[in-house]
Amino acid sequence: MKKEIKFSLLYRDMWQSSGKYQPRKDQLERIAPVIVEMGCFARVETNGGAFEQVNLLYGENPNKAVRAFTKPLNEAGIQTHMLDRGLNGLRMYPVPADVRRLMYKVKKAQGVDITRIFDGLNDARNIIPSIKYALEAGMIPQATLCITFSPVHTVEYYSNLADELIAAGAPEICLKDMAGIGRPHFLGQLVKSIKTKHPEVIIEYHGHSGPGFSVASMLEVCENGADIIDVAMEPISWGKVHPDVITIQQMLKDAGFKVPEINMDAYMRARTLTQEFIDDFLGYFMDPSNKETSSLLVGCGLPGGMMGSMMADLKGVHAGINMFLRGNGQPEMTIDQLLVRLFQEVEYVWPRLGYPPLVTPFSQYVKNVALMNVYNMVRGEGRWQAIDQNTWGMILGKSGRLPGKLDPEIIALAREKGMEFSDEDPQQFYPDALADYRKEMDENGWEYGEDDEELFELAMHDRQYRDYKSGIAKERFMAELEKAKTDQMAQQGFSDEDIKKAKRAGCDPIIAPATGRIYWEIDPEEKSIAPAIGAEFHTGQPFCYIENQFGFIEKVFCTFTGRITEVVAQGTVVRKGDEIAYLRPAEKEIKWKDAKEPIVRVETLPEPRKRIVKTAKKK
Amino acid sequence: MKKEIKFSLLYRDMWQSSGKYQPRKDQLERIAPVIVEMGCFARVETNGGAFEQVNLLYGENPNKAVRAFTKPLNEAGIQTHMLDRGLNGLRMYPVPADVRRLMYKVKKAQGVDITRIFDGLNDARNIIPSIKYALEAGMIPQATLCITFSPVHTVEYYSNLADELIAAGAPEICLKDMAGIGRPHFLGQLVKSIKTKHPEVIIEYHGHSGPGFSVASMLEVCENGADIIDVAMEPISWGKVHPDVITIQQMLKDAGFKVPEINMDAYMRARTLTQEFIDDFLGYFMDPSNKETSSLLVGCGLPGGMMGSMMADLKGVHAGINMFLRGNGQPEMTIDQLLVRLFQEVEYVWPRLGYPPLVTPFSQYVKNVALMNVYNMVRGEGRWQAIDQNTWGMILGKSGRLPGKLDPEIIALAREKGMEFSDEDPQQFYPDALADYRKEMDENGWEYGEDDEELFELAMHDRQYRDYKSGIAKERFMAELEKAKTDQMAQQGFSDEDIKKAKRAGCDPIIAPATGRIYWEIDPEEKSIAPAIGAEFHTGQPFCYIENQFGFIEKVFCTFTGRITEVVAQGTVVRKGDEIAYLRPAEKEIKWKDAKEPIVRVETLPEPRKRIVKTAKKK
Repeated sequence: MKKEIKFSLLYRDMWQSSGKYQPRKDQLERIAPVIVEMGCFARVETNGGAFEQVNLLYGENPNKAVRAFTKPLNEAGIQTHMLDRGLNGLRMYPVPADVRRLMYKVKKAQGVDITRIFDGLNDARNIIPSIKYALEAGMIPQATLCITFSPVHTVEYYSNLADELIAAGAPEICLKDMAGIGRPHFLGQLVKSIKTKHPEVIIEYHGHSGPGFSVASMLEVCENGADIIDVAMEPISWGKVHPDVITIQQMLKDAGFKVPEINMDAYMRARTLTQEFIDDFLGYFMDPSNKETSSLLVGCGLPGGMMGSMMADLKGVHAGINMFLRGNGQPEMTIDQLLVRLFQEVEYVWPRLGYPPLVTPFSQYVKNVALMNVYNMVRGEGRWQAIDQNTWGMILGKSGRLPGKLDPEIIALAREKGMEFSDEDPQQFYPDALADYRKEMDENGWEYGEDDEELFELAMHDRQYRDYKSGIAKERFMAELEKAKTDQMAQQGFSDEDIKKAKRAGCDPIIAPATGRIYWEIDPEEKSIAPAIGAEFHTGQPFCYIENQFGFIEKVFCTFTGRITEVVAQGTVVRKGDEIAYLRPAEKEIKWKDAKEPIVRVETLPEPRKRIVKTAKKK
Repeated sequence: MKKEIKFSLLYRDMWQSSGKYQPRKDQLERIAPVIVEMGCFARVETNGGAFEQVNLLYGENPNKAVRAFTKPLNEAGIQTHMLDRGLNGLRMYPVPADVRRLMYKVKKAQGVDITRIFDGLNDARNIIPSIKYALEAGMIPQATLCITFSPVHTVEYYSNLADELIAAGAPEICLKDMAGIGRPHFLGQLVKSIKTKHPEVIIEYHGHSGPGFSVASMLEVCENGADIIDVAMEPISWGKVHPDVITIQQMLKDAGFKVPEINMDAYMRARTLTQEFIDDFLGYFMDPSNKETSSLLVGCGLPGGMMGSMMADLKGVHAGINMFLRGNGQPEMTIDQLLVRLFQEVEYVWPRLGYPPLVTPFSQYVKNVALMNVYNMVRGEGRWQAIDQNTWGMILGKSGRLPGKLDPEIIALAREKGMEFSDEDPQQFYPDALADYRKEMDENGWEYGEDDEELFELAMHDRQYRDYKSGIAKERFMAELEKAKTDQMAQQGFSDEDIKKAKRAGCDPIIAPATGRIYWEIDPEEKSIAPAIGAEFHTGQPFCYIENQFGFIEKVFCTFTGRITEVVAQGTVVRKGDEIAYLRPAEKEIKWKDAKEPIVRVETLPEPRKRIVKTAKKK
């Protein structure tokens, strides 16, 4: 019998590699005990990466979600882990040192045991302070090597980086093979090199299955000393996501390793639950192409986790490119041809930008440059004309040291633009900021939350946090969801009438109490419009006005609490008994007088011909 | 540098694992030179398996297709290979010895260098005569081990079988891992065992990527002495098909093996061409779920190659099961729940049926029994109530020896039914048959074809060959294709009007020359109907009749050569100038007087009220 191999279930990354959103708190609370029951996971990835941010984006509190998810896992003795981006924390751009430090305190308090700290450039300067902050907060810092495949990314290069991170206090090393392009033999050799020098250090391998190497990689790293393997499970394993625990467990068992057994009954129940979450709302934001493996990823090295957003970008420029081609009498490109062209351009661009590992945010930068190059070249223009500020920051060394050498063409371009290169520690460009955020919270009368978690959330994702607090995030998300549902039904060949019916399922109407013209508001400054899809109304809240043929205005009240799913336009003439709007009823009724943040306020009472004036929303 | 590993492109199996049909002769002629240009393939799988049969099914001559595909590959020095089912030849049930023998002569003459001979039960008695026939015909017999995963399928079991096949004259051994459930370490040990005893024997590994092991398996078999790896390429690699050559080549290169380089420019062109074939017609018969990997295949062990037909079967019983459930007030099952239930039942059934390797036809038998068990159990009835004759044949030993022991329950059931078990050589139940087929050809005046290939085709697939010769196969296929196109468009949300327009693209109408009622035929015995979609009409051929209000009948002639894509029903009243039908014009015009096999013959000329009598088609 060979050594024991443990598994970690990437419940967070499975979703992030498949689509835009993460399950809600109530969904995580339902899946957690079933994950425990499966009996085969020593660890579960609960949060980090984009988890916190997308919670805010759909109007939910990430702090509540993380605590709810970690609690049952902690109680069952399963270690929880999160992904953090070192200098960039949980976002795409650098985080002040005081906010980084607070993060580990908050996350430890929220029940997260381990933090996987990576830097997209593998610059140890961006990782080492996080190792120290994490240790200080009582978390286990798992220092990360971002795996990529290039002439500069040798076993020696990675092994030296591991030495440095271990010396800085990391008791664990993660091989983060985010694009899944690490070659199996190479990965085995790398693990052997680290384990030989540091037998006490725990090594966890994280690989995506996009280009197809990952299963062989997992066998090779285990044969060479890895301790823990990251896995996924149905219905969102494989494709551009991660291998499924069933296959990996069976492979390792046959190869003589000690592996835990899988409770398949619990597996099937977890699978059904996850499918239920997909059907509930998450599936509307998942790209089906993420279910597919593609060897074209081998050459370009782009990570599976960014395929969803990349396909969206591609669709965006696709129409523009074809419009140009049509206009010039050239044959149009299919989205697939464009994708292949983009892959080829990434292969061209990447070495010239100094081989930054293709991981967030640098994968985005490289992809953006390649995309704009393709776009400009199709139009008969040259390369490198549309490099954004963030990408220039990376080129100039503001994000850390690039692993490889920049192409002379790029250096010349920078000099031409009067830009200056830097080799200083990137953190220094970002001074401490907590004091300002405390002030903002105080001014708004916002609670700092348990263990300062609300303060941290504002400091990490300030724009998104403000939108979450104002309710606009939720409104925007509900509108986005309604649109996604409608679009999908239309694609599936449902008629407008079917879509209407389906959208109305579970919704109740507000009925016109009189015949006349509907006014939602009379905005003296801008266009008067109906409330947004997703806008919440409470029981007894003024809803709209009906002006009859004699100019009398009747006030319509909302008769229950819910969110708008369908609504007639301002100025529509309705007959008594017609539906003015449909609302999805809320689980809990809120009486209008109790509501703290009215969405519509009416300052003047409606009388014949008297103006209804819309006022700004409460801040 | 380790040893050299060669690649074989599974151009035949890629299609068979993805859908129902194979590319047409003209398509194979276009792809062959591009495959050669890729420069990385020592071998290409050109035919065998279902290739010949599906050519007949869509009304084309497989002999012409095989010759057209092998020629450019032979000329480029690429070895061509085919798959044959030993005793079952190229079909699902046993083939007389004289037909088996003729097969190798015909295929050698058609340019096929190697034949991969397998028996679904791994019974050497069903393989060894084929080894001898192939050698006699000058083909290279590659004897095959059907890989499965069970307590009886040990390294020793397979290694002994390999010994026996090598002793019978096989210079090559194929590990046919048709379900992809061979465990990587196990496969490595098996290769090592064979190579140690027989270093001169060439070992080729064939694996499907369905359950996810295959890439690791390929690395393990290469590390242990395999010589050739079967691969696929975009756009039909991965999922339940096979790994892509790009990934395997890169993995082996990194691991120190000598591997050929891939001409990526040719790869991309071959990819585009294959996509064009998919868009042309093949894609209408491909199941998109075959693009997905699933670890649920690990437990049930079903081969990726049969997923397409299984999904079709499932959809068939799905409605019936749900009708029953609804009728009994029980919750309905989704197709996914039914699939999982089926997988679980296969796991139950398989050991009890003596562990037949899950490969054609036995995978079908086991799946059918499991499916009927699920169907009956959902309806509150017991297992094993619907075992068909072929499956009983397997159970009783008529197909060869089962690898494992039958469950006592099954043995008791057989005895109860008065059935007898047999251990005799299955071939003896099937006496020589070529003389009869020669007689049939002579009677019909059919040509035996180059190297007796037409005689062979009739003998191997008699029913399909007759339908091909009569033209009914082509007609049926064209109707199936039209229906598939319409269904897909309807699914994609196109309106009936859009579908009509799209179906008419490239088609021309037959215009009514007068106002009146349309008669296609007056069949005195059965219902009179319009000709089938796909029916061919020649220029000047009588097309239909229009009866005006005075009872005068006008004969309408077809004005060009083509196949019907849309047609008005018998009895429709049309106005002068209306479209009676749309036909897709043929590439080559055929004048009615030259046509050898009229589809509709008219014996009486139309006069007022005179009967139009339909006669039987020429045999």
